[in-house]
Amino acid sequence: MSKQGVPQGFRLGGCFCGIKESKKNDLALIVSDTPAVAVGTYTENLIKAAPVLLDQARTPSRSIRGVVLNSGNANACTGTQGDQDAATMCRLAEEAFGAKPESFLVLSTGIIGEFLPMPVIEQGIQALSSQLGESEEHLQQAAQAMMTTDTFPKIDQRSFALSNAAVNLMGLCKGAAMIGPKMATMLAVFVTDAALDQAEAHAMLKRCVDRSFNCVSVEGHMSTNDTVLLLANGKACPEPIAPLDYELFEEQLLAGCQRLAKSIAEDGEGTTHVVTIEVAGLKSEEDAQQIAKTIANSALVKTAIHGADPNWGRIISAAGYAEIPFDPMQVTLHVQGHLLYQAGQPVAFDAEEVSEAIRNQKEVTLRLKFSEGDAATTFWTTDLTAEYVRLNADYHT
Amino acid sequence: MSKQGVPQGFRLGGCFCGIKESKKNDLALIVSDTPAVAVGTYTENLIKAAPVLLDQARTPSRSIRGVVLNSGNANACTGTQGDQDAATMCRLAEEAFGAKPESFLVLSTGIIGEFLPMPVIEQGIQALSSQLGESEEHLQQAAQAMMTTDTFPKIDQRSFALSNAAVNLMGLCKGAAMIGPKMATMLAVFVTDAALDQAEAHAMLKRCVDRSFNCVSVEGHMSTNDTVLLLANGKACPEPIAPLDYELFEEQLLAGCQRLAKSIAEDGEGTTHVVTIEVAGLKSEEDAQQIAKTIANSALVKTAIHGADPNWGRIISAAGYAEIPFDPMQVTLHVQGHLLYQAGQPVAFDAEEVSEAIRNQKEVTLRLKFSEGDAATTFWTTDLTAEYVRLNADYHT
Repeated sequence: MSKQGVPQGFRLGGCFCGIKESKKNDLALIVSDTPAVAVGTYTENLIKAAPVLLDQARTPSRSIRGVVLNSGNANACTGTQGDQDAATMCRLAEEAFGAKPESFLVLSTGIIGEFLPMPVIEQGIQALSSQLGESEEHLQQAAQAMMTTDTFPKIDQRSFALSNAAVNLMGLCKGAAMIGPKMATMLAVFVTDAALDQAEAHAMLKRCVDRSFNCVSVEGHMSTNDTVLLLANGKACPEPIAPLDYELFEEQLLAGCQRLAKSIAEDGEGTTHVVTIEVAGLKSEEDAQQIAKTIANSALVKTAIHGADPNWGRIISAAGYAEIPFDPMQVTLHVQGHLLYQAGQPVAFDAEEVSEAIRNQKEVTLRLKFSEGDAATTFWTTDLTAEYVRLNADYHT
Repeated sequence: MSKQGVPQGFRLGGCFCGIKESKKNDLALIVSDTPAVAVGTYTENLIKAAPVLLDQARTPSRSIRGVVLNSGNANACTGTQGDQDAATMCRLAEEAFGAKPESFLVLSTGIIGEFLPMPVIEQGIQALSSQLGESEEHLQQAAQAMMTTDTFPKIDQRSFALSNAAVNLMGLCKGAAMIGPKMATMLAVFVTDAALDQAEAHAMLKRCVDRSFNCVSVEGHMSTNDTVLLLANGKACPEPIAPLDYELFEEQLLAGCQRLAKSIAEDGEGTTHVVTIEVAGLKSEEDAQQIAKTIANSALVKTAIHGADPNWGRIISAAGYAEIPFDPMQVTLHVQGHLLYQAGQPVAFDAEEVSEAIRNQKEVTLRLKFSEGDAATTFWTTDLTAEYVRLNADYHT
């Protein structure tokens, strides 16, 4: 991945406005000089936070000017007051930039069930609006303002040539292996100076999110606020990108999504391993994903990996209760490249050698092959550690 | 629950035959003097252990004489050799009691992927077959022979009057909150001297298991060996029980199943709380169960309870991703009798008081009320502790 600048026509910044007790950055603005195509994918949780409901109502759109974002408070389970506060955050940003009504989107993450401290947010938006830019420093400040329990800002930048223009794509993301005391929200914003059709952009984003952010699970707890946005202002393109270029763009978007998604698993405080689960040989990608997700969410599998235990039984039996039909006699399992199981039975293997191969690596790969078809998926998770439990149990509402 | 004797016409016993390194009991026999109606419910895991496949093929039946059971080895993922060993265990028991071929059932629990040590099992069956009885001592020996990581034997006994006879029902069960290093198997055997119709018995057992053993989850890992058997030899009844008596019998069977199911959650080494999740107001019992199970399997909910944190947000949002439609504005949540959430928002409550009410009680009750219908369910789980992780991570295959 090349380290490039902020896509053309976008400015951004972040600051501490007064939400977080830690006094770390808690407010960000990402603004396009001109109206952008904007599409989003949102949590499927029935309990949706106010900003999710607002963004869902405003996207897809061809006239979004920017995103206002806060951390430290998720504005979730806050009733009509919360809806009003989300709309007010957007209105304040719209006014600060002379943008049309309803042309901003909003993202919030942090504790739930508490009202936003609107006075400090109002002051913050006004102050920050005059300090935006496109430098590396501005980018870092904005990315830091998304963080809750994240230990590092998560940024992906890429530049690539389409048939009629060189374009830039940048993604910012937060999410830290859901170990935090707050709700385990994942937020991501992608901005690009490519000119994208609204419907194509929406379809692309959904496909990419399905193969990236929807393939990361730490404990399977879907949040009230999960959101991925894509804004495209077309600044780098004199004309809409050619139909053939969509494939190339989607490849880059998927790579960006996957890199950021994996960084969520990598940022697991209290975890000791990132686990990549490769599942192949199913009738559909959905089937493969269901099996991978079931393995990823098994506490017995996750504790075994933490203990560097090549416990094929826990992995195979988790696959067995995923409710996806397969021939149990035709499954093979490799852990760190070692074949552990095939033809309905474990094979003879050097348990100490495989255990060492798990213990000594931060990255662990489980590879399962079935015989039902040609579909495959890749899924990321973490191990389950006593430290995870301590971090999550020691928090008090 | 009254403490009664072993149902008439049944004898049982348990011993150490040589499977377990701990030298604790690892072999049991439960035998009926006369052929019994036998029905079973089995794991839905696609990876089924050899004894499960054998019992599934032999039930429902009207001519089962008994059950041979071992712990310390699950005879799972053992291929055709495992199938032969399961059949051999039954044949040895059949020969020892002069019973017809294929008149015994078999249960195994313990480590998976290893072949049974058949010579010691053969000697054990022969020795144990002459030592059966119906005393409390025999009962305890048999129940102990089912245990793996269980810390206490799990027995339920009840006697009750039907319209034409007084009958006895007894259940033995193993399962210890799935904290153990071995596969988390749940096994239960019920025996009764009531005379039951095979089809009625099968339908009753399925309904009762759905409302008891299927409502216990520690980490949601369904084992390769889970089995519940019911044997009815009719010794206490001169005639088949009257149609009207089935309702009464089912009530008692359900109570026995629920008591044993809850004892599984209570026996969680490394856990500090048993959690009862009451969900009401859904369109169907399945919907209620799905919501309860999703909450029960949330690591964020379970760690919060361990930390005595009245974290309504984790509970409500877990309900929200259960994929069951409900009106989020019409949900109420009580924790330990305290109202924490209603009308889409948390209510004002004394967090320290609720926290104390969790911390000071072994039993924690979460009560969720929805507004979709009249169906309800009760579900049991445990909290998630660092000790659980330690116990599960420190084991090596």
